[in-house]
Amino acid sequence: MKIDLENVLPADIERRSFEIIEQELGGRILDKEKAPIIKRVIHTSADFEYADSLMFSENVVEYALAAIRRGACIVTDTEMGKAGINKKVLAKYGGEVLCFMADEEVARIAKINGSTRATASIDKAALLDKEIIFAIGNAPTALVRLYELITENKIKPALVIGVPVGFVNVVQSKELVINSSAPYIVARGRKGGSNVAAAICNALLYMVDETRGA
Amino acid sequence: MKIDLENVLPADIERRSFEIIEQELGGRILDKEKAPIIKRVIHTSADFEYADSLMFSENVVEYALAAIRRGACIVTDTEMGKAGINKKVLAKYGGEVLCFMADEEVARIAKINGSTRATASIDKAALLDKEIIFAIGNAPTALVRLYELITENKIKPALVIGVPVGFVNVVQSKELVINSSAPYIVARGRKGGSNVAAAICNALLYMVDETRGA
Repeated sequence: MKIDLENVLPADIERRSFEIIEQELGGRILDKEKAPIIKRVIHTSADFEYADSLMFSENVVEYALAAIRRGACIVTDTEMGKAGINKKVLAKYGGEVLCFMADEEVARIAKINGSTRATASIDKAALLDKEIIFAIGNAPTALVRLYELITENKIKPALVIGVPVGFVNVVQSKELVINSSAPYIVARGRKGGSNVAAAICNALLYMVDETRGA
Repeated sequence: MKIDLENVLPADIERRSFEIIEQELGGRILDKEKAPIIKRVIHTSADFEYADSLMFSENVVEYALAAIRRGACIVTDTEMGKAGINKKVLAKYGGEVLCFMADEEVARIAKINGSTRATASIDKAALLDKEIIFAIGNAPTALVRLYELITENKIKPALVIGVPVGFVNVVQSKELVINSSAPYIVARGRKGGSNVAAAICNALLYMVDETRGA
């Protein structure tokens, strides 16, 4: 098993990786709009389970691409997720990535309320006068709070990417999002993570970028 | 399936998550030194395959903890990995996390050499006058270059965390590390990622921190 010396540069590795993913998905026919997202998540995780676990609300990809084109911002629940999102492409359309987890006001409010910083972050994001894509890869409490605010008509997200990973309240929090009125992309079950959240954002960003001026 | 209202704060969620992981690992007996690392990687991925795929060189945990106590730095190949590592705990012992991927000199050298920025990053790290833990969660070329420098006696890492994820050269690059003379923790196979690299670093940092002053 030797190193493949024809594919050592990042662009070559990525192209070849997507070819392998395509092959290993076999004859499986993916929805054209969803395929780039599913493949990029598999690319970032080497985990083919996502071909089955990723759930999409109706027309969500179309809505999400339109929101990015209009300059929607992305709010994440981790600095890791923020670090992984392609901020250059997002900025072309006027958007930016925001993470309030290290915000002092958020920490103070969480402490007063006995809630989590993730919950307080969502409350802070709800006050923004912007279209927002929520990219939640870590905190189920962020999804629970989003569900409450959506149900109370206090927030209308452009998209909820609900992919926290873990063992406590994670599965349940994702089902809340699936049962909400918001457009969603959710990784059903325990798996997910900040890397998966970033991969979904990047897949959407690259789709917008490829169709630019088309 | 209801939200578990007794475990909504991060510390409670983490404690309960580790209990569930322990239960689901069943009667399996993990090496005492390796267990906190294996469990934290499962915690960050919800993927029990890591219980089998994580490979450790002899006494690597003991060596790694000693290196952290002496102030070793951590060099990562992604900003995501850097974002995920607990820099506060590392700083207590005099270490810091470095990532050279966005370094302009590194970009220039990679371009001149027709190599990757990850390769050039390793060359730059090799010039540091410090003990280094390499936490590689993305670029197989970083591991290939590390292997070359180790073999040529040009670098002597305190630890190589070899957990890139992917489909091209990833499996092979990890086997190189396993066959090198360096202390290693490697996730054999395709799986891994910056989140896994950060989780391994954090598991080691928390082990050092728990035994502080003991």
